[in-house]
Amino acid sequence: AGSDGADDIANRTANIAAHLKKLYRKSVLPVEKKYRYDYFYDSPLLTDVEFDSKPQVLLVGQYSVGKTSFIRYLLGRDFPGQRVGPEPTTDRFTVLINGPEERTIPGNALSVHPDLPFRGLERFGVSFLSRFEGSQLPSSVLRSVTLIDTPGILSGEKQRTNRGYDFTKVVAWFAERADLIILLFDAHKLDISDELKGAIDVLKGHEDKIRCILNKADQIDRQQLMRVYGALLWSLGKTMTSPEVCRVYVGSFWQEPLQNLDNAELFEREEKDLMKDLAILPRQSAVRKINELVKRIRKVKTLAHIIGYLKGQMPSLMGKEKKQQKLINDLPNVFRTILKQYNLAPGDFPDINMFSEKLKEVKFAEFSTLSKKSMEELDHALNVEIPKLMEQLPSERDSPETLRAKMGSGNPNSSNVPVPTMN
Amino acid sequence: AGSDGADDIANRTANIAAHLKKLYRKSVLPVEKKYRYDYFYDSPLLTDVEFDSKPQVLLVGQYSVGKTSFIRYLLGRDFPGQRVGPEPTTDRFTVLINGPEERTIPGNALSVHPDLPFRGLERFGVSFLSRFEGSQLPSSVLRSVTLIDTPGILSGEKQRTNRGYDFTKVVAWFAERADLIILLFDAHKLDISDELKGAIDVLKGHEDKIRCILNKADQIDRQQLMRVYGALLWSLGKTMTSPEVCRVYVGSFWQEPLQNLDNAELFEREEKDLMKDLAILPRQSAVRKINELVKRIRKVKTLAHIIGYLKGQMPSLMGKEKKQQKLINDLPNVFRTILKQYNLAPGDFPDINMFSEKLKEVKFAEFSTLSKKSMEELDHALNVEIPKLMEQLPSERDSPETLRAKMGSGNPNSSNVPVPTMN
Ligand SMILES: Nc1ncnc2c1ncn2[C@@H]1O[C@H](COP(=O)(O)OP(=O)(O)OP(=O)(O)O)[C@@H](O)[C@H]1O
Ligand SMILES: Nc1ncnc2c1ncn2[C@@H]1O[C@H](COP(=O)(O)OP(=O)(O)OP(=O)(O)O)[C@@H](O)[C@H]1O
Ligand SMILES: [Mg+2]
Ligand SMILES: [Mg+2]
Repeated sequence: AGSDGADDIANRTANIAAHLKKLYRKSVLPVEKKYRYDYFYDSPLLTDVEFDSKPQVLLVGQYSVGKTSFIRYLLGRDFPGQRVGPEPTTDRFTVLINGPEERTIPGNALSVHPDLPFRGLERFGVSFLSRFEGSQLPSSVLRSVTLIDTPGILSGEKQRTNRGYDFTKVVAWFAERADLIILLFDAHKLDISDELKGAIDVLKGHEDKIRCILNKADQIDRQQLMRVYGALLWSLGKTMTSPEVCRVYVGSFWQEPLQNLDNAELFEREEKDLMKDLAILPRQSAVRKINELVKRIRKVKTLAHIIGYLKGQMPSLMGKEKKQQKLINDLPNVFRTILKQYNLAPGDFPDINMFSEKLKEVKFAEFSTLSKKSMEELDHALNVEIPKLMEQLPSERDSPETLRAKMGSGNPNSSNVPVPTMN
Repeated sequence: AGSDGADDIANRTANIAAHLKKLYRKSVLPVEKKYRYDYFYDSPLLTDVEFDSKPQVLLVGQYSVGKTSFIRYLLGRDFPGQRVGPEPTTDRFTVLINGPEERTIPGNALSVHPDLPFRGLERFGVSFLSRFEGSQLPSSVLRSVTLIDTPGILSGEKQRTNRGYDFTKVVAWFAERADLIILLFDAHKLDISDELKGAIDVLKGHEDKIRCILNKADQIDRQQLMRVYGALLWSLGKTMTSPEVCRVYVGSFWQEPLQNLDNAELFEREEKDLMKDLAILPRQSAVRKINELVKRIRKVKTLAHIIGYLKGQMPSLMGKEKKQQKLINDLPNVFRTILKQYNLAPGDFPDINMFSEKLKEVKFAEFSTLSKKSMEELDHALNVEIPKLMEQLPSERDSPETLRAKMGSGNPNSSNVPVPTMN
């Protein structure tokens, strides 16, 4: 109960993230280190940024389809470094993040910042980093999500030759990490299928995260709109491998009033649905973080049992190597024994082949024994602390409407498509 | 100039067909027989029905999508044997043809009628013929086109087991011969992608002739319509191999007024476009008949020159077989000589390998000599008579509006979707 607006959602999810982080540091990380989770699972220990990072929304589309204007519209205000215009205007990847003061942040700084999820972008070289920028501003929308603006996709050849960095790979890097990819099209232009091919090529493998916007739909009449929309879905059906129909939101997503009011009601409903799609992201992302930590804790627990068991089997004086070899050969039985003894789930065990390879490289005698106290702490996290956190999740039902209310309300110029207010 | 209504179109195209038929019988058929065109081209001599047959429009779709209602709507009246209803109702293939009195014609009679293009359907057996029927009525629409109603496509298993004849092959037979295939969908029902797969499987290879109708579109609201329409085009894009977007007409194609007036204007424009698509069929079909006859005459002429030349090369007394063998071996040079000598087009020559096989089976000595008079008659047909016929083609510009005017006008119940009048 109580007011559940965008700020509340942001507070709740931030709170959950903070708790998960604390839980991980206090109860999980020490166990991971003790039983060498990172080594056995080839998986680095988690850092703060994995918990703190916000759901990311990536905007992709040919130049001039209105990506930057859409972001401006979502934010309800201009943002530092914003450039809008009919020519290819945005020449850099721009990450929009929440912060008390308005400023731009150079790509170099962004890509090494420990609290931001952009480490690893250095690999794309200095000419990319000079085209990578942060735009910081205080915004309730950005408290919940991170938006990423991109330069317009150019047609075939230009794409490859003009940039000085591998545009496709950079987009793929962001797409991999995004929670939602919004692919924009201009209803007013006709070369949709060409545009599309380029975009879909870039986003291969991330089809489930793609939503489309058929923008500027108020510039054409209804029959033309049906044709363009149909042509878009026809091409999407041909190029996308997923069986489910890709959702395409039709409308005009900027702050100006509609040029043609024919479809005003439709556009309003489409915009509402899109806002819902955005509004559930923080909750989705919090749920995902919880689920991932739960999965991880169960695996850590199982690993500790395996390692502790193997350690316990070691003779105290002689024949350690021989015994170790015997245990490795007998690994299936070892797993079975532990599974029964501690009432674990088969799915939480590591892959047996990979694991036995790993075991060959280490000395069982140096393993840690099973710590009962650590196991109790992990169980407490699983059975008490995390269920309590889940109660703090923002309600699934209230959030869309209220984030929408925050994002766009009562603009006197246009009673049809709500326009974000300054806040 | 002058009134160019549906009756006029029907008169003009019927007149062209009659002239072509006369021309063929008088000037072409005798030459074909003389130089054995049917033998050398494995192509039967033409009969009247090839000239007289009207463009065929095949209606296909799952049961209850409104195929029969659509035909009733086009005709502006009920037709003999018509059955409309919410269950699978049409249980037979029904051919709608123009005739002075209203009656149904049994499939047996239809399939052997020399003036109708349904010979060959006997191959599908008696249980098909008992599900094949003609519906004759006086109708200006049917003077221009032949409509073919079909039983609804059933889902997978039922399709195969319940009919007693091979439904898919029968539809394929009609599709092969149709000038236009209208594939109907019910916007009100949701299993579009399943429906579609069945239908498209049946129509494989005829994609270029397919137009779709998303029927009963007035039963849902605009946003739902966008979703259904999008899902249809998505699936069409996935299942159809053609690169061009398949045209989907959205509306409610029956005599009742629209249930929901939201899209009235769109539906009216869609209906107009569909009527245009139908209205150009008679002209298209007349143009195709002319083109095919022109092509045929050119080939007949070329064949006559080849045969006449070979005949001319025969020695009058001895060594005929040897000479014949030599000419066959030298066929490329023979073709080249004739090509130059008579100023013919390379494209009008027969395939040289196939032709030389055919030559091996016959005696050149029995060939006819070249008849100058026949050649002059063919040239006269090509250069004088056919160009004159082409002037009689219905105008491309006037016809759609006027056929539309004939097909649907002024219904007091619905100012939106014009309804056919009784005539
Ligand atoms: N919904 C809209 N309706 C009509 N015009 C729009 C709309 N959104 C943006 N525009 C106009 O389209 C042009 C391109 O807009 P914008 O710069 O936002 O596109 P972009 O996709 O960010 O382009 P680029 O890839 O070059 O950065 C601008 O002139 C803008 O005013
Ligand atoms: N445009 C329309 N809007 C709403 N209802 C319609 C429309 N056209 C037809 N119907 C209704 O849908 C039902 C099925 O119509 P109809 O018999 O014409 O379909 P059909 O495709 O010929 O079916 P079948 O394959 O069984 O022969 C009937 O009840 C009819 O009244
Ligand atoms: Mg931009
Ligand atoms: Mg029917």
